[in-house]
Amino acid sequence: MSLLIISGSSRDNGNTEILAKEAAKYFDGDVDWIYLRKQTIHQITDQRHTENGFTPVEDDHAGLIKKMVQADTILFATPVYWYGMSGYMKTFVDRWSQALRDPDLDFKQKMQKKPVYVLICGGDRVSVKGIPLILQFQLICEFMNMDFKNYFIGEAKKPGDMLKEQNQLAQMKHFFI
Amino acid sequence: MSLLIISGSSRDNGNTEILAKEAAKYFDGDVDWIYLRKQTIHQITDQRHTENGFTPVEDDHAGLIKKMVQADTILFATPVYWYGMSGYMKTFVDRWSQALRDPDLDFKQKMQKKPVYVLICGGDRVSVKGIPLILQFQLICEFMNMDFKNYFIGEAKKPGDMLKEQNQLAQMKHFFI
Amino acid sequence: MSLLIISGSSRDNGNTEILAKEAAKYFDGDVDWIYLRKQTIHQITDQRHTENGFTPVEDDHAGLIKKMVQADTILFATPVYWYGMSGYMKTFVDRWSQALRDPDLDFKQKMQKKPVYVLICGGDRVSVKGIPLILQFQLICEFMNMDFKNYFIGEAKKPGDMLKEQNQLAQMKHFFI
Amino acid sequence: MSLLIISGSSRDNGNTEILAKEAAKYFDGDVDWIYLRKQTIHQITDQRHTENGFTPVEDDHAGLIKKMVQADTILFATPVYWYGMSGYMKTFVDRWSQALRDPDLDFKQKMQKKPVYVLICGGDRVSVKGIPLILQFQLICEFMNMDFKNYFIGEAKKPGDMLKEQNQLAQMKHFFI
Repeated sequence: MSLLIISGSSRDNGNTEILAKEAAKYFDGDVDWIYLRKQTIHQITDQRHTENGFTPVEDDHAGLIKKMVQADTILFATPVYWYGMSGYMKTFVDRWSQALRDPDLDFKQKMQKKPVYVLICGGDRVSVKGIPLILQFQLICEFMNMDFKNYFIGEAKKPGDMLKEQNQLAQMKHFFI
Repeated sequence: MSLLIISGSSRDNGNTEILAKEAAKYFDGDVDWIYLRKQTIHQITDQRHTENGFTPVEDDHAGLIKKMVQADTILFATPVYWYGMSGYMKTFVDRWSQALRDPDLDFKQKMQKKPVYVLICGGDRVSVKGIPLILQFQLICEFMNMDFKNYFIGEAKKPGDMLKEQNQLAQMKHFFI
Repeated sequence: MSLLIISGSSRDNGNTEILAKEAAKYFDGDVDWIYLRKQTIHQITDQRHTENGFTPVEDDHAGLIKKMVQADTILFATPVYWYGMSGYMKTFVDRWSQALRDPDLDFKQKMQKKPVYVLICGGDRVSVKGIPLILQFQLICEFMNMDFKNYFIGEAKKPGDMLKEQNQLAQMKHFFI
Repeated sequence: MSLLIISGSSRDNGNTEILAKEAAKYFDGDVDWIYLRKQTIHQITDQRHTENGFTPVEDDHAGLIKKMVQADTILFATPVYWYGMSGYMKTFVDRWSQALRDPDLDFKQKMQKKPVYVLICGGDRVSVKGIPLILQFQLICEFMNMDFKNYFIGEAKKPGDMLKEQNQLAQMKHFFI
């Protein structure tokens, strides 16, 4: 079994990644990471209804989709920026619309029923204010027929604070179900 | 009175912009547009807690913030991509965290109580599935102390379909309150 | 074609009912009303997992379910009390769990694909604060396999204020789709 | 310090109450319970705008409000019925509108800043489908200026199942913050 963690953080070792690393300890199988901040991903140009479809884009996106397709389980880990997923992650997800039209990828078919986990982390009352983002991931999974297994809303303010959050870290033991 | 329309669409004259243009007809004052797809805006690197703060970024972002600050009223117009604002708009909004630390901009103070309107447009049952995005804009406005006046959830599928949506277009008469 | 309007208002001719009456003018078929405040409906005792199932309850509930089953289209019209449906309506809906176990009613089967409309009305920024209630109705419809066609969030404060809301009343023309 | 647990369950010792009892073990102070199913509470008749205000109602409601006012901390514990709080609890909360107009109770003033906890329990994917109910409690607390400290979404299906949910029970240790 393999787990692919897709991190939307803009910084190394932020609180979201601390939490995701802790969760990864309890995953029974191989763990691979994609750090979106280290990838080149262009914004989408919506050509779903253009006669010739999408113009191919030279960047890292298709390679990342291939990794998603190969993984048994996906964990989306993103800090909550402005009550949503980070721009890194949103830019990545928007381009799925292009990937869906790429017959070489067979993206939607291959993602079907794939177990998906979501880990978000924020500061200011994120347990309530992060709710729209959980609803968004739920809708994304529904559209893709992915199996939204579990989510966790982490709370920490300054970089590294999560290292001291024994209670939250302990809950990672039961995250993968 | 001036209105600034910030468009997150990836295409010219998409359904969201058709709707926003219709609304603009009924705004009593000057109307200016920002098309985010024509701007260079880099993803944020979160340096809120870095000793020396944010590293200055060479792109169009600060200029756009200046336009926001000068406008009397803001309309965010974005297609619903993957049940959220477009990556163009999310990338733009994420960088507000940097703008907030820029003393030259006085961003938060100047946005206080500014009337904000939100217009989103999608296809698949967007009146329900667009709800998390409305909640997100509500939280954004709350954080910035902006005055979230009204929103509209438009529904149309193919490019240009909105031109035929007489009922939706007619509702734009009452959008600015 | 027949429409059944189920009103959760506690008062006669409140703003919610004014709006529902206006909508009813544009329904092409017979219109019938249930005023829950005039019915006797007891709170549920959850006996879904009791050996002998639910103890029969002597009140008006089963009769109302029969009306729902017979109607072609249902409109739930409720004022927003404390950011939810009224207690009258919630008490009525809770008892559906009992009705679902009543073989004489064949409730779930008969409600399948039935078109459902929701009209809620409130005062304080209800277009945003009424959103959790719309999400709740969406989930209720999903569970029952009912077809959630459209909703409208009305805003009015004092009794009768809706009569002056020409814009909102006009939108009732397009409510049934 | 005193904690008042207000239970909206329709059955004794249901999963919600099992969880609330577990949480109560970790509350440092006196714990009192209100079982709404054992109280007589009539539906509200909205007379907020009636000249002479609300007609007094002979039931247990005012006594319960007095208990809320006296308690230092409130825990609302309700099963998720139809993606909302139970009818018992909704009927109780609706009548707060009447209590707010009762000068003897001084209800809103006395609830200000009072710490509030919410514990809900459901079966079918409640971690996502219970979200509208959490949003509703958040809005209720906001209106009353109560301090919404924490919530927990419990998952269990059959009566008593929660007794076996070691992981969920363990999380009750950290519920009161």
